[in-house]
Amino acid sequence: MIGKYFDYNATTPLREEVVDVLKEHIGTFGNPSSIHSLGRIAKSKVQEAKLQACKLIGAGEDNQIIFTSSGTEAVNFALKGYLHAFEEENVHIITTQIEHPATLEVCRFYENRGVEVTYLPVNQEGIVQIESLEQAMRPNTVLVSVMMANNETGTIQPIKQMLQTIKAINPHVFFHVDAVQAVGKVPVHVTDLGVDALSFSSHKLYGPKGVGALYMKDSTSLQPLVHGGGQENGWRGGTENVLGAIGFGVACSLAYAELPVQYDKMIELKAYLLEKLQTSIADFDVNGTIDTGHSLPGTLNVAFAHIRSEALAAILNEIYGIAVSVGSACSSEKVKLSHVLQALGHSEDRIKSSLRISFGKYTTREDIDYLIQSLSQSVYTLRQMLPQVKEKV
Amino acid sequence: MIGKYFDYNATTPLREEVVDVLKEHIGTFGNPSSIHSLGRIAKSKVQEAKLQACKLIGAGEDNQIIFTSSGTEAVNFALKGYLHAFEEENVHIITTQIEHPATLEVCRFYENRGVEVTYLPVNQEGIVQIESLEQAMRPNTVLVSVMMANNETGTIQPIKQMLQTIKAINPHVFFHVDAVQAVGKVPVHVTDLGVDALSFSSHKLYGPKGVGALYMKDSTSLQPLVHGGGQENGWRGGTENVLGAIGFGVACSLAYAELPVQYDKMIELKAYLLEKLQTSIADFDVNGTIDTGHSLPGTLNVAFAHIRSEALAAILNEIYGIAVSVGSACSSEKVKLSHVLQALGHSEDRIKSSLRISFGKYTTREDIDYLIQSLSQSVYTLRQMLPQVKEKV
Repeated sequence: MIGKYFDYNATTPLREEVVDVLKEHIGTFGNPSSIHSLGRIAKSKVQEAKLQACKLIGAGEDNQIIFTSSGTEAVNFALKGYLHAFEEENVHIITTQIEHPATLEVCRFYENRGVEVTYLPVNQEGIVQIESLEQAMRPNTVLVSVMMANNETGTIQPIKQMLQTIKAINPHVFFHVDAVQAVGKVPVHVTDLGVDALSFSSHKLYGPKGVGALYMKDSTSLQPLVHGGGQENGWRGGTENVLGAIGFGVACSLAYAELPVQYDKMIELKAYLLEKLQTSIADFDVNGTIDTGHSLPGTLNVAFAHIRSEALAAILNEIYGIAVSVGSACSSEKVKLSHVLQALGHSEDRIKSSLRISFGKYTTREDIDYLIQSLSQSVYTLRQMLPQVKEKV
Repeated sequence: MIGKYFDYNATTPLREEVVDVLKEHIGTFGNPSSIHSLGRIAKSKVQEAKLQACKLIGAGEDNQIIFTSSGTEAVNFALKGYLHAFEEENVHIITTQIEHPATLEVCRFYENRGVEVTYLPVNQEGIVQIESLEQAMRPNTVLVSVMMANNETGTIQPIKQMLQTIKAINPHVFFHVDAVQAVGKVPVHVTDLGVDALSFSSHKLYGPKGVGALYMKDSTSLQPLVHGGGQENGWRGGTENVLGAIGFGVACSLAYAELPVQYDKMIELKAYLLEKLQTSIADFDVNGTIDTGHSLPGTLNVAFAHIRSEALAAILNEIYGIAVSVGSACSSEKVKLSHVLQALGHSEDRIKSSLRISFGKYTTREDIDYLIQSLSQSVYTLRQMLPQVKEKV
């Protein structure tokens, strides 16, 4: 089954080591807030997990990481926690047109409350132009939030250049990075980057669902999103998801150790996938970019001319047992065109024919062979069904 | 170890059946938002868990339950989600002096923003008097939030009578109940009660940490606390904690099936514990009430005259391996007197000598024998150390 899974950007399977650790610690049930031994054991496990998470993203201190229930919650916490201090009708924030709904929905929420929001455009590769960021900055800009890697196309933004641009204009602007799709896949080093806050998530890097994290610079002070009993140094109320934290920590630790090897492996697999696509299927286009410096190695978004990717995904799933995604998994319940591909300037036709293939550490060359074979047959069949389309496969 | 655990109100061990289910479904990794088979399987598992949670609290429809990451998040969501629609300086809300920090901290947050808050007092048993609620109601009261069972004393509030009082004065007032300590321990039936919203939590009823739930009446409309990709019918963004939900659902289902038997067992154990206390230790007082109609059967809060319960808890933990709580687990990191016991009108001395003993489904009579023996020896030793205190044990 794992070999037929090409939807790693939606979620990843738990890695075996994490499964083992979860099973081992399933009896670790103390409440970290309790003063007795069981409580202290639970607390130390959560602390250990934080150190592991810190290491993965190059953070210096464990108290700079707040565990949340998801990447989405981390994004909400960063944005709402920071904006809370401002008079809403007087401030301006900047984000991009291609953000995840976590960011876009928070921005729309604030827009309805009087905050001015600039949604930066991207070029056809899906990259924000530094000049447009520069031009968008205003005297009342207080926050910029940008995703490091896009979930649909895998395009990576020039975060460090963005930070330098922003801080050169106004060092007080808060720069949050949604790195949910980047952390564990490409090197992310918050201290090098110098960002004020960064969100990431466990289930995108082979850890359990229900855990995310927000990194904050030491100097940062955010209003809690969830008020309560003083957990997470007062930043977030609610009994900690101890088992989830343990699994997340181990996943972070292993991701850190394997990153160079996995990165190279993904680069190689993507090259192989592209090569096989080119020799097997006619008339397709890549959405975003395949430039390794500007894209996730395990993501390929492809438009197959003359077909509907929803039908293609259904055939791949029903006939071949293959899981892929059409647009972002998080918006699949809503029938609408991908806002990301729209921002890239693509036509409705192209967007409706686009498929996201995302793979990861359990993917092999043989899996890609099977995918290509299935894709090729499915695309052929679908194109056959359209009499007006000339045979191209 | 389980037999020496008397801190069930802080958190409960995972029950064996939940452990088995978690292990069985640890490979269920699809994202419920994905359209392929793995996604649909994950989605159906979460739906099943909701039906199980609904049944436990007597809710009619599965879409009235929103899964959160904790009881605290559920409380935050209910209160903030409802208050969002109002001009803060014009509204009044009512809660009690003995709420959990989840509620109190949200109320303080709003107080700082201009909302008027009435904190209802309680009598010496820890029960809110209906007349004081009646008197607190104002024309601009929009929300009342009361906990069903107190985490420290176990005292149960007359929720139905409160609801009737509130709605008779103003049917538009939103009544939220924090039932985190009640659900699974005493019968809770939201339809019978008629409340607008009710929060509860998985790890208080032998389910995994990192999952809570908010029940909302059909007609209720709340602003999301976490904006995002349309999950939970748009009420809460973020990829669902699928495994956590599965475990929570099974825990709910088993709690529902066992409630009558467990309730009776706890009543019996508490009577046994009290009887043994009376014959073994002099000079102690129960905080709250032992009236079975007005208290949790598995909670006993006791003040042992002339000693410091922090020292007592430490001895019990270090020498006897017993876990108990001093004040609420959630506030144990802060060195301060229990606000609950203060609200009951107790002196600083009495509060500092108070210990919370909470037990549950794995507790036996033999465990209570061991607890009493250890308690009796520890109390004796501590009292011996105080020369000014006459020997009373």
